[in-house]
Amino acid sequence: MTGPLEGIRVLDFTIAQQGPYATLLMADMGAEVIKVEQPGHGEIGRVLAVDRESRVSCYFLAINRGKKSLTVDLKKEKGRELVLRLARDCDVVVHNFRPGVMEKLGLGYDEFRGANPRIIYASASAFGTRGPLGRKPGNDILAQAVSGLVSVTGENDGSHPLPTGVAIADHVGAVTLALGILAALLHRERTGEGQQVEASLLGSMVAAQSWELTHYLVTRQLPGRAGRGHHHLPLLWQVYTTADGYMAIGGLYPHRWPDFCAAIDWPDLAGDERFESLGNRIRNRDELNRLLDGHFARRPAAEWLKRLEAADIFCAPVHDYEQVATDPQNRENEYLVPLRHPQLGDITVVGSPIRFSATPAEIREADPALGQHTDEVLQGFGYSAEEIERLRREGVL
Amino acid sequence: MTGPLEGIRVLDFTIAQQGPYATLLMADMGAEVIKVEQPGHGEIGRVLAVDRESRVSCYFLAINRGKKSLTVDLKKEKGRELVLRLARDCDVVVHNFRPGVMEKLGLGYDEFRGANPRIIYASASAFGTRGPLGRKPGNDILAQAVSGLVSVTGENDGSHPLPTGVAIADHVGAVTLALGILAALLHRERTGEGQQVEASLLGSMVAAQSWELTHYLVTRQLPGRAGRGHHHLPLLWQVYTTADGYMAIGGLYPHRWPDFCAAIDWPDLAGDERFESLGNRIRNRDELNRLLDGHFARRPAAEWLKRLEAADIFCAPVHDYEQVATDPQNRENEYLVPLRHPQLGDITVVGSPIRFSATPAEIREADPALGQHTDEVLQGFGYSAEEIERLRREGVL
Repeated sequence: MTGPLEGIRVLDFTIAQQGPYATLLMADMGAEVIKVEQPGHGEIGRVLAVDRESRVSCYFLAINRGKKSLTVDLKKEKGRELVLRLARDCDVVVHNFRPGVMEKLGLGYDEFRGANPRIIYASASAFGTRGPLGRKPGNDILAQAVSGLVSVTGENDGSHPLPTGVAIADHVGAVTLALGILAALLHRERTGEGQQVEASLLGSMVAAQSWELTHYLVTRQLPGRAGRGHHHLPLLWQVYTTADGYMAIGGLYPHRWPDFCAAIDWPDLAGDERFESLGNRIRNRDELNRLLDGHFARRPAAEWLKRLEAADIFCAPVHDYEQVATDPQNRENEYLVPLRHPQLGDITVVGSPIRFSATPAEIREADPALGQHTDEVLQGFGYSAEEIERLRREGVL
Repeated sequence: MTGPLEGIRVLDFTIAQQGPYATLLMADMGAEVIKVEQPGHGEIGRVLAVDRESRVSCYFLAINRGKKSLTVDLKKEKGRELVLRLARDCDVVVHNFRPGVMEKLGLGYDEFRGANPRIIYASASAFGTRGPLGRKPGNDILAQAVSGLVSVTGENDGSHPLPTGVAIADHVGAVTLALGILAALLHRERTGEGQQVEASLLGSMVAAQSWELTHYLVTRQLPGRAGRGHHHLPLLWQVYTTADGYMAIGGLYPHRWPDFCAAIDWPDLAGDERFESLGNRIRNRDELNRLLDGHFARRPAAEWLKRLEAADIFCAPVHDYEQVATDPQNRENEYLVPLRHPQLGDITVVGSPIRFSATPAEIREADPALGQHTDEVLQGFGYSAEEIERLRREGVL
């Protein structure tokens, strides 16, 4: 069995995270992804977050495994001609250079469409290609900031606003871009028509806050920071402190308040008039959370979770990365999967988040060395060994 | 021009956010989404985060606009037969009930495949359908907790771990699910084969941390909380305090350190030996950030941003929701779009994050009233007015 995108070929000019993770999703689903990199040093992702000990960039590994690396100097005319030649037999071209860079290289949509009218030409930007920031470069933390996400993340006591603890804008931007590419491929499959597709970090992060922003746009009530919960889910939607760590509770049907109090071994709380009605609990939620933090701090998380689970109340432990790594849930669902790596040996990496019954996604190979597949790819497109050697001598590859 | 998914019909059993936002993305791209809801009260999203003044649920509006609402009692045999009948002429079935619920209703993949072998049967769960939590229900904050995201979000001084300020797991889970559906549709278009597709909140959030988790899996170095930046981007990747708000800086090429110091009107800082080399700046980053916070606190954000922009340094304001709402960047890129709403009048909502040159996404209509399209949909599938009336009398609709 092969992935759902088997037979789809992607000519991939992407760098860093948003673009490369979009094509990683496609590679895991069976697409052939040909990563085009500058000869000599390759793309910036290769030197980001390099581990001191192994000299491996886990950043590059995590978002480029399963791709082929082809080196081409795009600033040389022969390099430009070469990628346009390859595009005749590809389905998708993707890049996330600063808006205007590909056009300046003579590699805009018009050139690729000229080479292959059926091509899907996908580009990702930081802030969108129109408007006052339409030519501005950017990255994850800037998109988190401009989109409003930073403003609602952090303790809700006037403390400093915070970014999310991982590069979430890059990730959401990547999945959104991949979604656009697949929609365009589906349209092409049904009509024969190619087109240009765009997504941005900012647009993806605005969409990620659809609910919360729509609430503001309709009510004009500025939300505070979400604190340990969510601004619009004020009750028992919260991360609490326990004796040995933290746990999350994910809401409670109002009629189950007495059950909750019994489950946490504090039945008298149900009779406390400050919390006796839903309205009172919402009004006095800060006091309630303070009391619960004190109460939960007396016993370890596992004990509370066992009691809450038994009462069928939404709850979960706050896992650190070590716990994520050992959680059988992640192994059994193949969210974490084994991979043999040429330098690192047998390691575990993050798998595809999508399960297909007929065409399973698959983690195929480690991240490619720079130019590892240059000869193989070009020969596959009909270049002879002599032509390849000549291009290499001319500094094109 | 119509969207890339024009002609794709989705029978949508989803509730709350992850499932409904996945089908919203599809509706914006031109799919016909038929939302199947329980007669009488509809799905839970209709009563979440209802605005006191307008009585409108901005939650429901934000993630269900542009869909059709059909009421069917799935617990009645005739209701079950009806949706299986509709599925014969649909392309996709989607649900995000707790694993096992649809099967118990006699509406699992086998039944739908029996009705339509080409159907794409998509389901979303909280934690995946296998493993110890394979039958456990869950929601956004629990997935943020179990996936490790909460553990790395928050101040890095030993403070409390925090969820992201919006329902980010629901969003990432939704886009991931939609991606899986489109991949399966594309495969079906190319081969004729239908299949089952699954995504989960947990799997989507593990994938969202691909880089950061891979780093842990390879190095076994437990990251601290990201604080005001990112654990693996320790230098000048940070949200800073200014005289009138906050701003973000998104990294600096090491050789540009003197330019940065000049841009912030503090050229002497470049000569400070604590920060004179990249290694020193990383080692002394806490001290550097403390000094910069003090320095930036002297002037308003706009002034700093102007200076940093002029020096071509990655930076951005931390926008609150009011600033997001008025930012021309969001209007001009159609991240925020106008919508006429039957109760609210002319409002602004969040648009599609994807731009297609040939088949633009489009925000068509407001969120449907419960059962608003029951007659229209059923007539479109060949039911006569008499049949519909009879089903309604029998309590099926």
